[in-house]
Parts: sequence; structure tokens; C-alpha cells
Amino acid sequence: MSARPSTRRSPDKYNAILRAATKIFARKGFFNSKVADVAREANVADGTVYLYFKNKDDILISIFNRTMEDAIATGRHALAVMSDPIAKLRQVAYLHLERLGRDRNLAVVFQVELRQSTKFMEQFSTTKLAEYLDMIRKILEEGQRAGVFRTKLDTKMAAKVFFGALDEMATNWILSRRTYRLVSTVDPVVELFCTGLCPDRAEA
Amino acid sequence: MSARPSTRRSPDKYNAILRAATKIFARKGFFNSKVADVAREANVADGTVYLYFKNKDDILISIFNRTMEDAIATGRHALAVMSDPIAKLRQVAYLHLERLGRDRNLAVVFQVELRQSTKFMEQFSTTKLAEYLDMIRKILEEGQRAGVFRTKLDTKMAAKVFFGALDEMATNWILSRRTYRLVSTVDPVVELFCTGLCPDRAEA
Repeated sequence: MSARPSTRRSPDKYNAILRAATKIFARKGFFNSKVADVAREANVADGTVYLYFKNKDDILISIFNRTMEDAIATGRHALAVMSDPIAKLRQVAYLHLERLGRDRNLAVVFQVELRQSTKFMEQFSTTKLAEYLDMIRKILEEGQRAGVFRTKLDTKMAAKVFFGALDEMATNWILSRRTYRLVSTVDPVVELFCTGLCPDRAEA
Repeated sequence: MSARPSTRRSPDKYNAILRAATKIFARKGFFNSKVADVAREANVADGTVYLYFKNKDDILISIFNRTMEDAIATGRHALAVMSDPIAKLRQVAYLHLERLGRDRNLAVVFQVELRQSTKFMEQFSTTKLAEYLDMIRKILEEGQRAGVFRTKLDTKMAAKVFFGALDEMATNWILSRRTYRLVSTVDPVVELFCTGLCPDRAEA
């Protein structure tokens, strides 16, 4: 939530506005959406939206922050009880693609609407996204210590490549004319990432 | 070029307008740019731009098509004289990242400005991008036939993952506060992609 004090604010209404905004931004595009459209969809007065958010940008940033905070918390919680690094990677991939695959509007906002300005993207990439990449990197480093992943691996780069792969799966899913479950891509991506293209491991 | 007939059109002017537009879109963002800004940067009258392009959307689409056509032609030309599938993959990665790394404005337009609407993205992904992914996929299939890549590999998915990795490298490079050459990421990405995370091949 923004810093504005108000006695009339409720978490339910805050969440309802974010949900409505996700739907509106996905449907009309962020640039073409108005705060009034969001208010109407959330069934609140225009002024109510401004009790919770400074402006339209603030709503988009809040969708990003809220979703990433939830993704990081859910991820950490799930990983805490696991030990196999490959299973952990698969879990991250699953949580990532399941979240977007179950909410197409959220997927459109994440894969398209959030990427329309370097200003936005610079802001995002230095905060929650860095934390998310760090979660992946830690799994790779654990795997190195356990002898499961190559020690010569550049884990920072590999974390970005893994994220890039998941990201591409999500974008492809949005744009595809075929109907398939986004989570169906989890196993092939993780397998490709662990085994690589070359046959020595898998078929030798 | 668009289909409008004119005796006053020249390839030089067409190219100059596209170069100017790339610079303007990268600097101001596509939505905030006006055709008049592009004309001023290209040192032509506003009306001249409309001899070559229907509107601002048409300019952005032409930047995409022109760049992709050139990338596909250059790629095919380079690959034609090569035989090693891994070297071919590295060549694709090099050409991809060298092109964007030498023209930051083009990189911003490709990584950010072109992705701001599902309408645009749907249009792109079904045409030149599909052709580009196909070029990567063919390398993977050749590699399978040559016994260099695993036969069980889903080459369509692997081509997307490879593209996703290059794409993520380019986006990271734009957003990074550090200064480094984008092509420095070619070898680590290709190696990761070929060898995978697991140690059996590289260090066993």
C-alpha cells in the first residue's frame, strides 16, 4: 500500500482494485486504460482508487510488487522443506508457470504491459526481480556444493538463462493460437536446462 | 516499403527515416514519440515520412521486419558455409547479440518498445520471429542427425529456450548499470545450453 493515511482503507478493497486493474490492463493495454475503468471494474468510486494508489503507474507497480512478493514468499516456503537442487529448480519453474498459467490476465500484464518502458523495467529489475533471480542462483550454488551442478558454472548467468527460458515459455503461451497448459512446459525446460543439448549424459 | 506509389521515394531516405525512428523511439518511447519527431531527426518534412509509411505503427513494424529480414539473411549466409552444429548455434548467438550490442537504440526498440502490446506481439510472433526460431530449430535437428545433440530433444521447445536465453541477455544488458560488451555473454550461454548444469559431461 502507498503511504497515504486513511481510515477508510481495507485490504479487501485494495486487493479488489488490483484484481480489477489486472483485468483492465490486460484487456485494454496499460496506456489505453484509465483509472476510471479500473474503478468501474472494481465497483468503487474513482476517488476510492486514489485512497490506495497515487496514480495509474502506482497501480501497475503495485501489481508487480504484490505478485513478486507473493511469488518469492511462496517459493522460499516451498524450497525450505526440499533438499534436491534439481527438484528445487523444478519447483521454481512450476510455481512460476502455474501462477501465470492460472491467470491469463496476470500473465499478459507481466509478459507485456510491464515491459513497455525502460523506466519501469529499470525500476523492477533492480528490486524484486533481482531478489527472485537470487533465489534461483542460491539453488544453483547449493547444487554446486552438493556436486549436482558443475562447479565451473557462472551461477549468476545461469540463473538469468533459466529465468529467460521460463519467461519465453510464458510469452509464447500468451501469443500461441494453440490451447495447452503452461505448466506442461515445466519438465522439458528443466530437463533441457539440467542435461543440455548434448547426448553424452542422457543417451551414452 | 509500403505499397504507396511515388516517384519521390529513395531507399536512402527510407533507411534514414528508419534509423531516425529507432533513435527517437528508443529515447522517448514509442507512445510518446510523434511522426514529426522522427521527421525532424531524419531531416525531412513530416509529409515525406508519409510517402514511405502509413503511420507511426507502420514505422515500428518496418523496423522490426527490416531488422529480422536482415538477421535471417545474414544468419543463413553465415550458416551455409558451416557444418558443426555447436559452432552454428554459437554463430546465431553471436550475430544476435552483436547486432543489438552495437546499436543500443535498436536493442531498446527490440527489447522494450516492440513488446508493448499483444496486438503487435501476435503479429510479430507469427511471421519473422517464427522464421528465426525455425532457423535455430533446423540447427538442432541437423545436430540430432549428426549425433551431436540428443535425439529425444524437443527441438521446437529447445529453440524457444535458446531464443529466450539470448533475449534475456539482451534485456539484462540494456537495464544493467554495469558496462560490458553484450557479445561477452555468447560463449557462456552456448556452453550452458550445450552442456547443461550437471557435471557428468564436463567434469566427470
